Amino acid sequence: MSVTYAQGFKAAGVDAGISAKPGKKDLAFVVNEGPLDAVAGVFTSNRFCAAPVRWSRAAVADGHAKAVVLNSGGANACTGEAGYEQSHATARTAAELLGIEAEDVAVCSTGLIGELLPLEHVTAGVHAAYDALAAGEQAGVDASHAIMTTDTKPKTFAAQGTGYRLGGMVKGSGMIAPQLATMLCVITTDAVVSAGQLQAALGVAAEYSFNRINADGCMSTNDTVLLMASGASDVEPDPDEFNDLVAQACASLARQIVGDAEGASHDVKITVAGARSEDEALVCARAVAASNLLKCAIYGNDPNWGRVVSSLGAIPEQDAAFNADEVDVSINGVQVCDGGKPGRDRSEVDMTPREILIDIDLHAGEQQATVWSDDLTHEYVNINAAYE
Amino acid sequence: MSVTYAQGFKAAGVDAGISAKPGKKDLAFVVNEGPLDAVAGVFTSNRFCAAPVRWSRAAVADGHAKAVVLNSGGANACTGEAGYEQSHATARTAAELLGIEAEDVAVCSTGLIGELLPLEHVTAGVHAAYDALAAGEQAGVDASHAIMTTDTKPKTFAAQGTGYRLGGMVKGSGMIAPQLATMLCVITTDAVVSAGQLQAALGVAAEYSFNRINADGCMSTNDTVLLMASGASDVEPDPDEFNDLVAQACASLARQIVGDAEGASHDVKITVAGARSEDEALVCARAVAASNLLKCAIYGNDPNWGRVVSSLGAIPEQDAAFNADEVDVSINGVQVCDGGKPGRDRSEVDMTPREILIDIDLHAGEQQATVWSDDLTHEYVNINAAYE
Repeated sequence: MSVTYAQGFKAAGVDAGISAKPGKKDLAFVVNEGPLDAVAGVFTSNRFCAAPVRWSRAAVADGHAKAVVLNSGGANACTGEAGYEQSHATARTAAELLGIEAEDVAVCSTGLIGELLPLEHVTAGVHAAYDALAAGEQAGVDASHAIMTTDTKPKTFAAQGTGYRLGGMVKGSGMIAPQLATMLCVITTDAVVSAGQLQAALGVAAEYSFNRINADGCMSTNDTVLLMASGASDVEPDPDEFNDLVAQACASLARQIVGDAEGASHDVKITVAGARSEDEALVCARAVAASNLLKCAIYGNDPNWGRVVSSLGAIPEQDAAFNADEVDVSINGVQVCDGGKPGRDRSEVDMTPREILIDIDLHAGEQQATVWSDDLTHEYVNINAAYE
Repeated sequence: MSVTYAQGFKAAGVDAGISAKPGKKDLAFVVNEGPLDAVAGVFTSNRFCAAPVRWSRAAVADGHAKAVVLNSGGANACTGEAGYEQSHATARTAAELLGIEAEDVAVCSTGLIGELLPLEHVTAGVHAAYDALAAGEQAGVDASHAIMTTDTKPKTFAAQGTGYRLGGMVKGSGMIAPQLATMLCVITTDAVVSAGQLQAALGVAAEYSFNRINADGCMSTNDTVLLMASGASDVEPDPDEFNDLVAQACASLARQIVGDAEGASHDVKITVAGARSEDEALVCARAVAASNLLKCAIYGNDPNWGRVVSSLGAIPEQDAAFNADEVDVSINGVQVCDGGKPGRDRSEVDMTPREILIDIDLHAGEQQATVWSDDLTHEYVNINAAYE
C-alpha cells in the first residue's frame, strides 16, 4: 500500500526520461495535504553528501514539509553548486505547482555519482507527476517503483494503529552500509503528531533498522529517510504505540532491503550476545557482517566459523572486550565453535534456507546487538562491474 | 632464489600429505646453520591467533632461532591446547633431528581454520624434509612451493648487499588485510647482525609493506614474518644499506602478494597526498582500498571516482581532516574529480593496464601514504565460495 495508505497523502510515479532504462518510472512525487505538515528526517553522514541531501536537510530543519520529489537515474552527488541549484529548482517547480514555498519541498536523488541531472526532464517529470497525483493504492505503488535502481522489487510497508495509519516505501540494494544504506525512504502517517515526536521516533527506529544492515560496507552519499505526518486521522496516538509502529516500519523496510540486496542469495542475521555493552556487541556484529570471506563462504553454503572468529579477532581489545578462548558461535542453531575451538561438526548445519542465523556469544557481559547482512555472489560482482 | 640465496641456510619442500591436493608440496623446512642464529619476527594481531603463532612468538622472543617448519593444508587455528601441543610437537621433532632445543624452532601453518593437523603426516614430513635439506637454489624453490595455498605462483626475493646477501619467500593471496596479510614469510641473510638490528629493520619494513596491502580486508589468524641471520658472510653491513635491503625484500614480497591476490585482474595503487599527517593519509587510503563497490568497478574497467569519494566521505572528520569541496582524484593520470566535482571525462582514462593508479589529493596538509589493493572479481567469489 506504500505511502498513500495513510490518509492525507497523494503520490505519483512517472517516467520522466531521467533513467537510461527506457520506459522505467524514475520520478516520484509525494504530497502531504494536511491538515498537518510535520516532518522528520535522517540523512547520510557521508562528507560528500549529495546536493539533494543538503537541500532536504535544510528544508526539513524547521519540522515542516508538504511534499517530496524523488528521482532515480542520477544521484546529483559531487556536482557542486550547479547540483545544489538543480535540487533547488526541482523544489521550486514542485512548490509553484502546489502553491507553497520551495523550502517546504524535500528532494531525494539516487543513481550515479558525479553527474548533473537532465534538469528539463526532471522539471517535465514533476509537472507530469503533479497531474498524476492520486490518493489510491496504485499511486503509492507507482511511486515505490519510480525510486528503484538496481532493486528487483518495490519495498513498501503499511500498518494500522489505533485510529490512524502508517505507510512507507524505500529503495536500496547497493551501497548498503552501517551508517545508513544507499536508500531513499518515505514513511507517512495520518496520526496527529508533532515534528519533535516524529524525529524522536525516527531517530530510534532508524538506529535499530537502517543503521544495522550492511550488504557491502559502502556508505552512500544520498541516504535519506523522511517521516511525514498529515494529521488527517484526527487521532493523537499513544506515544508508545506510535513509536513502535515507526520502528516496525523501519525494521520491515530495512529487512526488505537486505532481502533484495544486489545479487544476494542468502540473508544473514548476525546476533552478538554476552557483550559488556550494546556498542561493543554492535562493533562485533558489524565486523562479522563486513567479512568478504565469510560472505563468499555463505554463498558457497559453507558454515565456515573460522571466518567468523577471524573477523572478531581483528577488533582491537579496547573496542570490544572478550576472551578468544570463551567465544561460542552457532550457525543455524548448530554450535560449531565452542570456546574458540571446534564444536559440533559443521556438516550438521543446514545451509539451504535463504535466512542464515549466526549467533555469537562473547561471554563477557549481558548486552547484545543484531546486524543484518548478505552473502557475496557472482551476481553482486556482475551488477557492480558491468552496470550502466 | 628464495631463502637459500643467503649463505648459511639450507631448505627443503616436500609432499607430506597434509594438503588435500594430491602431490602438492605442503611442508617446508628452513635451517640456519650459522654461525649466528639471530632472528626477528612480526606476527598477526588477530586475537584468535593460531597455535603456531603463539608457539613461534615465544620461540623467537629471545632473538634466537635455528630453524622454521612451515606447512600449508591447515592453519591449526582455533584448536585450543591440542593445537598448541601439535606446534610444540612439530618443533620438537625438528629439534631432535637437528640436535637443538625445540625452543629454537619456529613453526608456521596456513590453511583452513578450526581443524587440527594430521600430526603423523607433519612428523613424517619433517623427517623427509630433514633428509632433503640442501643449500642450493632448487631447495629454496621447493620450500617456496610448499607454503603455497591458493597462491598461483611462488613468491621469492634475492638481493645482494656489500659483501652479504638477503633472500626470502612468502605465501599469501586471500585474507589480505591492513594488519598483516594472510601470509607466511621467511627472509634470510648471511650478514652479521644482531637480533635487535633485525627486529628494528623488520618492524619498519613490515609497516610500509605487508601492513599496507589490502586485498579483501580480512585479517588472518596465522600471519608470520621471520627474518633470520646466519652471519655466514662474516660481513657487518652498513646499517642504512641493510635496513634498505630488508625494506626492499618486504616491499617486493608484499607487491608479489598483491599481484597474485585471489582472482584479481587489476593491482590498484592508492596514494593519498595532501593529508595533515601520514596516519590520516593512511586512514583514507585504507578506506578506499576496502570499498567493494570500487573494486567491482575496477574489475569492470570503469574509473568510477564516485566510489572513491563516497569511501572517503564515510571517514569521520576526527579521523582525517579534509574539505569535501577540495578533494581531487586522478585515475591512471587523468584527473576525473576536481575539487569534489567532475573533472576530465572518465572516458579519457585507459583502464587496460594491470596496474591502476588512484591518486587522491586532500589539500589539507603535506603528508601522504600508499596502500596496494586489488579488484573484486568473479574468480575471487569462486575461490572463496567453492574452495575445498
